[in-house]
Amino acid sequence: MTQAPERGFPLREFEVRLQRAQRAMHAAGLDALLLTTEAEVRYFSGFQTQFWESPTRPWFLILPLTGKPIAVIPEIGAEGMGSTWVEDIRTWPAPVPEDDGVSLLADSLAALPRRYGAIGTPMGHESHLRMPLRDFLDVQNRLRPVPFVDAAPLLRGLRFVKSAAEVEKIRYACQLTSDAFEALPGVMKAGQSEREICRDFRIDLLRRGADHSPYIISGSGPGGYDSIIMGPTDRVLSEGDLLIIDTGTVYDGYFCDFDRNFAFGHADDLTRRAYDTVFAATGAGFDAARPGARMCDVWQAMWTILEAGGALGNSVGRMGHGLGMQLTEGPSVTPDDETELLPGAVITLEPGMAFAPGRQMVHEENIVITETGAEWLSRRASAELPVIA
Amino acid sequence: MTQAPERGFPLREFEVRLQRAQRAMHAAGLDALLLTTEAEVRYFSGFQTQFWESPTRPWFLILPLTGKPIAVIPEIGAEGMGSTWVEDIRTWPAPVPEDDGVSLLADSLAALPRRYGAIGTPMGHESHLRMPLRDFLDVQNRLRPVPFVDAAPLLRGLRFVKSAAEVEKIRYACQLTSDAFEALPGVMKAGQSEREICRDFRIDLLRRGADHSPYIISGSGPGGYDSIIMGPTDRVLSEGDLLIIDTGTVYDGYFCDFDRNFAFGHADDLTRRAYDTVFAATGAGFDAARPGARMCDVWQAMWTILEAGGALGNSVGRMGHGLGMQLTEGPSVTPDDETELLPGAVITLEPGMAFAPGRQMVHEENIVITETGAEWLSRRASAELPVIA
Repeated sequence: MTQAPERGFPLREFEVRLQRAQRAMHAAGLDALLLTTEAEVRYFSGFQTQFWESPTRPWFLILPLTGKPIAVIPEIGAEGMGSTWVEDIRTWPAPVPEDDGVSLLADSLAALPRRYGAIGTPMGHESHLRMPLRDFLDVQNRLRPVPFVDAAPLLRGLRFVKSAAEVEKIRYACQLTSDAFEALPGVMKAGQSEREICRDFRIDLLRRGADHSPYIISGSGPGGYDSIIMGPTDRVLSEGDLLIIDTGTVYDGYFCDFDRNFAFGHADDLTRRAYDTVFAATGAGFDAARPGARMCDVWQAMWTILEAGGALGNSVGRMGHGLGMQLTEGPSVTPDDETELLPGAVITLEPGMAFAPGRQMVHEENIVITETGAEWLSRRASAELPVIA
Repeated sequence: MTQAPERGFPLREFEVRLQRAQRAMHAAGLDALLLTTEAEVRYFSGFQTQFWESPTRPWFLILPLTGKPIAVIPEIGAEGMGSTWVEDIRTWPAPVPEDDGVSLLADSLAALPRRYGAIGTPMGHESHLRMPLRDFLDVQNRLRPVPFVDAAPLLRGLRFVKSAAEVEKIRYACQLTSDAFEALPGVMKAGQSEREICRDFRIDLLRRGADHSPYIISGSGPGGYDSIIMGPTDRVLSEGDLLIIDTGTVYDGYFCDFDRNFAFGHADDLTRRAYDTVFAATGAGFDAARPGARMCDVWQAMWTILEAGGALGNSVGRMGHGLGMQLTEGPSVTPDDETELLPGAVITLEPGMAFAPGRQMVHEENIVITETGAEWLSRRASAELPVIA
């Protein structure tokens, strides 16, 4: 087993993230970035807490064009934010429904030096605004005539390429999850429900060093499953079933995201052939993934295999995505995504297809782009569909 | 141990939720409600999936003024949504960055009958918009001149009062978590780190029937802790430490949210007195919680005890909140919240105070309002600070 990487990051990591952001802000003509989501705030501050599970209070991080980030946060978080590299921490006694940080945030933004006359915040594809819409519109109004413009592509570009320390955290999550997946055939058996199998798997992941698994789904059915985002249910596994388990498991704030398929008792030829096809597709995706290749090239390499293997279609909408601080990050492995792969980019390869009506086969692995090609972060699934005796 | 309640809800539950919503929509003059978050979509559809962990794709549920909800969702969710009571399911092959459901959503809203000429969506305190801001503004633009108005208070009012079936799920989460907390003194010991203790606690909760625990934090220090939203850390517990563990643990989509305090080896008089004070405060809060009382009355009852007990202040910002499908729901136990308690309302009582510089004591229990008063859902903490030998 790989050794658990050290938690947190050296100060230098945050300095580099900030420098890259400020360089991009100059290029985009932004005086500040306003960040409101867990991943964005954590990326630039190092502030890591499960408290985001509470939707009550908004949290704000401002990146000015020069100087360190400014945290505008509820008083309950002052102690925790104080242990990060952020020094300028402004608090209010949230929750205060009539002014929940709005004045403090607007004043903080208004007091920044103006050079370009625009503030960026993520508004575009895959972004969320984690504050009440009414309050954002109020802040926007108070800042007039300074416009808020979309900074989603800017942030996606920064976060797409991981540092060596980030990759090590993802690799560790992948390795311990590979261990747990490989142990499954020895512990699960027909007669157990999806829910029991996933509970034991979840416990095993914790024992192996995972912090938690925000995502463990399963699907099963005779010779195939029809969904890869629901469950686990109380359905009991029996001879002839195909089972998929997909997990997003976390170590120190970084995710793995991959799945494994298992046949119970036996598998018919159609199912085996579908497994062979998606397995071959991850191989083709891996071979296509190198610096300079685009996400759509990876998609094409995999789809060619799936089509030849008899794919009836794909209802997932894509065949992989960025991975890191969130279960899924941009960009996407789709026919239209022309994002260029760069060394340090971490993506999932997730070829999937309906191979018969109501029967899907989806396979997923995690890789990191290197200087010359790619490297597996998950230990690759077995080349043949595992059969649970 | 209580028997695990049946999963899901009978059809009637959703019919009643919809009827209550449509009655409120008439009163507020709304032709439709647009819902985008996990809890809102699940409340009215029954659609339950961990896939919300992926931020990539937006999901929409429309409540029309008459008729059943309309789901406008990514194709990947068609199968899962199809297993709920929702019949009108419209999909697109998300992710499609250039039009990720925007046209389909706008067309679906525009096609609804107009009676009042306004659409509600949560915009106010504690609400989020779980879709790209740019896309919402685009939908808003396409619907002109029909305005979008804030429906956060309307939804908070509906969800504040739980059905009997909802209360049973919360009660079960509370009871199994009470069991796990009561078992802790027998298994944890000085020399373990916060992280080890919380990992074992997390595993124990799963074994006892929890689906997962999205929130398990801890704080510890000599004679007190200084934060209740960070950790667990690698800090090793030793003689004289005070430890708090707070958890939001889930059964079938419903949370408990309460904490427990433990002293290691011994506790000084100041710490014991602080524990006695917050314990007495939950008792006073419980006594004040009855139909017709307001959240601020519950706050006052608890604060009176804390003040008499030497509170130096409270950096949490409130002393309790609504509880159910989310770790924290509105309203808040604050001096200003005049929300009236009603039978079926589930709230937390969370008196907390700094009792010395850098030393906090926070205690939390979960209760449900009955026809005549209140009932504990969590099994109350021991009246004396537990000391781990």
